[in-house]
Amino acid sequence: MNIQLLMTGNELMSGVTVDSNSAMIAQALSPLGLVVQARSTIGDDMGLLVSELQRLSASADVLIVNGGLGPTVDDLTAEALAHAAGLPLAEHAEALAHVTQWLAKRGVPLNAANRKQALLPTGCELVDNPVGSAPGFRLMLGNCLVICTPGVPSELRRMLVDSIIPLLQSRFPDIEPVLETRLHVFGMGESGIQQLLNDTFPEWPDAIELGFRAGLPTLEVKLRSHGHASRGLHEHWKQEVLSVIGEHVVAEGDDTIAKAFVRLLTERQLTVTTAESCTGGLMAAMITEVPGASAMFEAGFVTYSNAMKTELLGVDPMTLDKEGAVSESVVLQMAEGALAHSSADYAVAVSGIAGPEGGTEAKPAGTVWIAWGKRGAIRARCLFFPLGRRNFQSLVAALGLDLVRRDILGITSEPRYFRERKGKA
Amino acid sequence: MNIQLLMTGNELMSGVTVDSNSAMIAQALSPLGLVVQARSTIGDDMGLLVSELQRLSASADVLIVNGGLGPTVDDLTAEALAHAAGLPLAEHAEALAHVTQWLAKRGVPLNAANRKQALLPTGCELVDNPVGSAPGFRLMLGNCLVICTPGVPSELRRMLVDSIIPLLQSRFPDIEPVLETRLHVFGMGESGIQQLLNDTFPEWPDAIELGFRAGLPTLEVKLRSHGHASRGLHEHWKQEVLSVIGEHVVAEGDDTIAKAFVRLLTERQLTVTTAESCTGGLMAAMITEVPGASAMFEAGFVTYSNAMKTELLGVDPMTLDKEGAVSESVVLQMAEGALAHSSADYAVAVSGIAGPEGGTEAKPAGTVWIAWGKRGAIRARCLFFPLGRRNFQSLVAALGLDLVRRDILGITSEPRYFRERKGKA
Repeated sequence: MNIQLLMTGNELMSGVTVDSNSAMIAQALSPLGLVVQARSTIGDDMGLLVSELQRLSASADVLIVNGGLGPTVDDLTAEALAHAAGLPLAEHAEALAHVTQWLAKRGVPLNAANRKQALLPTGCELVDNPVGSAPGFRLMLGNCLVICTPGVPSELRRMLVDSIIPLLQSRFPDIEPVLETRLHVFGMGESGIQQLLNDTFPEWPDAIELGFRAGLPTLEVKLRSHGHASRGLHEHWKQEVLSVIGEHVVAEGDDTIAKAFVRLLTERQLTVTTAESCTGGLMAAMITEVPGASAMFEAGFVTYSNAMKTELLGVDPMTLDKEGAVSESVVLQMAEGALAHSSADYAVAVSGIAGPEGGTEAKPAGTVWIAWGKRGAIRARCLFFPLGRRNFQSLVAALGLDLVRRDILGITSEPRYFRERKGKA
Repeated sequence: MNIQLLMTGNELMSGVTVDSNSAMIAQALSPLGLVVQARSTIGDDMGLLVSELQRLSASADVLIVNGGLGPTVDDLTAEALAHAAGLPLAEHAEALAHVTQWLAKRGVPLNAANRKQALLPTGCELVDNPVGSAPGFRLMLGNCLVICTPGVPSELRRMLVDSIIPLLQSRFPDIEPVLETRLHVFGMGESGIQQLLNDTFPEWPDAIELGFRAGLPTLEVKLRSHGHASRGLHEHWKQEVLSVIGEHVVAEGDDTIAKAFVRLLTERQLTVTTAESCTGGLMAAMITEVPGASAMFEAGFVTYSNAMKTELLGVDPMTLDKEGAVSESVVLQMAEGALAHSSADYAVAVSGIAGPEGGTEAKPAGTVWIAWGKRGAIRARCLFFPLGRRNFQSLVAALGLDLVRRDILGITSEPRYFRERKGKA
C-alpha cells in the first residue's frame, strides 16, 4: 500500500519548528507494517497546496495531510482539498456541532473564526478529534483516501490511535506486519560493519533488508523483513549478525547504551563511580539521565584541574608532574581514588585532551587515557579519537560505559577499537 | 529564488529519526533572506530518488539534497543523481583523495565501501566536508544547481557555513541580506515575552519582524529586517527589546548560555564549582563542553546518594534524615561543602526530584532546591519545573548558570521565575 504525507505550515519551512509529527505518524503506522512512501512539506500557500494534493493523490492509496485545520486565515487545508477535488465548501453539520460543543465546554461562544473550521468539502466524513477544536476529515480524491489531521501534536497522537489506525485496518484488511530489529553498536564504524557482513555472508538474503543509521556515540544496524512467513528467517539472520558483531551491540530497539548500562548494573546489583577529567561530568550525566539510575550510581567526581585530581582523588602530585595528567599512572590513580572515596563496585576514570587547544606532538587533541575495573583489577588503555571536542566527549563517555559493560559480561576478547583507535602514548 | 530540499533516508520515513536537518538548512539560509519553497522526503529507493531529483530540479533554482553519501549499500545519492542527469559514475580523484586522507588521519586503511564514496557523477564538483569522510558535491541538473550534502548533522552544519552559504552568495550576487538578531532568553516563556513587548511597544514597526523559536533550556527571540537601509532602525529596536527583557538574555547569536557563562567567568577571573544531585553531572558537562572551560572550572561533585553527600561534601546526616535530601539546609550545606573542598569562588548546588519516580505530595517530581553564591554569601530557593526528567535536568542545569551569572553581573532584581516557578517547599 502506498501511503504518503503532506505536511503543511510556514513554520515548517522557516526552520522555526522541527517537524516531529511526521515521525509520529510513521511510528504509529510501523506496527501495521506500513511504511510512508514519500512526504512533501510546504508552506501555507493555496496554489502549492492544491497542486500537491493533486500530485500526491495521483500515486498514493492513502494521503495523510497534517496542519492547516485551525481557525486562522493561514489555515487553508479544507479549502485546498475542496479545490483539488472540484467540490464546493459547505458547512458540515456534524463538524459545526463538534466545534460548538468543544467551545461550550470551555465557556467560549462560537465566533466567525471557529465557524470557519466547520466549512469542509462537500461529502467528506469526519475523523473524530476528541482533544481539540479542529475536526479532522476524510475524502476520496480519485482513488486516494485523503485524511486531514490537525498540526497540534497531542491532537494528532490521539487521532492516530483512536481513529486513523482502526480506519486503515478496516479499509485495508490485507495489511501485513513488518519485522524490524534495531541493534545499537558501539565501537565499530558503518563501513567496517558493512564490510564484515559482506565478507561473512556473501549470500545475504534479499528478504532481509539491511540498513544503517549513523550516530554518535552509537550507530544503528537495522534488519527489516516483510510478511508473516519470515519470522524464522528474520530471527536466524539477526542471530547471524549477532554472531559477527554481537559483542559490540550495546542496546537493542528503543533502548540506549545508557539505559542498557543502568539496567545491567541494576540487575547484577553492582554500582559504578566515575572520575572524569576531559568528559567533565558527561559520563555521570549520561547515566543519571536514565530513570532509576540511583540504584547503581551514588557519586561521580569531576576533577578538571590537576590540583583537584590530588585533592579529591588523591592522585600523587609527583606523578602529575612527571607524567602529566593524560597518562596511565594518573588514570589508574583516579580510578583507585574514586573507589577509595565511594563504596562503588566499579570505577571508570578518564583523562584526555578534548581540544581544540591543549594538544602536543606526543599527545595530540583526541588522545585519552581510560582506566576501568573493580577494586584490585583496574586496567588502563590509551585511545585516540580526533573528532572535535563535543564528539570526543560523547564518545569517551560512552567508551567508559562500554568497557565496564564488557567487564561485567565477561567478554574477554579485546574490542576492535583497542587496535583501530590506539593512542600514541 | 526558488530553493527546494530533498531529504533522503529510510530512517526519516520510518519515524526512527526526526528530521532536524531541514530546519538547520532553513535557518542557515534565513540570514540571506532565502526561504525554502518546498521539501520532499523519501527513503533509500533508487527509482524514487531519480524521479524526485528530476521533478524538483525542473522547478527549483537550487536543490539541496541531504543524506545518502555514506559508504553503505543504502547510500544512493551519487548514483541517483548520475541517473537523473544521464551521466556515468566515475571515480572522482579529488573525492578519493579526501576519503583516503580522512581515513589515513585516523590510521584506517581504505576499503571498498569507502572507495564507493568517491564514485560520483562525471563532471560534478566537490563541496568540501572538513569534518567527515563523505565528500559533498554539486552538479547542474538542467537549470538547477543540485548540492548534495551528508546526513550527519555536525558535518552538514559545518558545510553550510563554510561552503554552501558562500557558494550561494557568489552564484547569486543579487541576494539581499537580512539583518537578524537572535537573543537567547532564559526564564521567560514565549507568550510572556510577546505580551510584555505588545504592552510596552504598541507601535511596533512593520519593518522589524519579531519571531520566536521555542527551545530548552533557552528560547530564542528573533528580530529580522530586510534591506540594507534598516541597520539603524534594527539596532534601535534591538536596544528597545533589551531594555525590557535584557536581564533574561543570557546569550546572543551563535553563543549559548554555557559559552557566555564560561566567557563571563574567565573575563572576571572567577572560578565556579558544582555540587549536583538531581542533574547528575549535567551542569559540569554543560560548562566543560565549552573550549577553555579549564580557566574557570576546576572540579565538580556528583553526589547522587545521601551517603555521598555526607562523604564528599560533609552534609550533616542528621539534616538529611530530618529534612530530606531535597531541602534548603541540604543544598546550602552542599554548596558550602563544595567551596570547602575546592578553591572555587562560586558554588552552585542542586537537589531535586527529576522523576518520574520519587515524588511525594509535599515534594512532587519537578521540585528542586538550588543554592548558589560566593563564600559566606550563599542563598537558596525552591523552584518547580514539572517537565519530565530530561527537560527538568536541562532546565535546572541552566538555572544554576543563570543564578551565578546574575550574581556576577550584580543584577539585584529577582528573576521572574522566582515568582512564576516557585516550589511548594
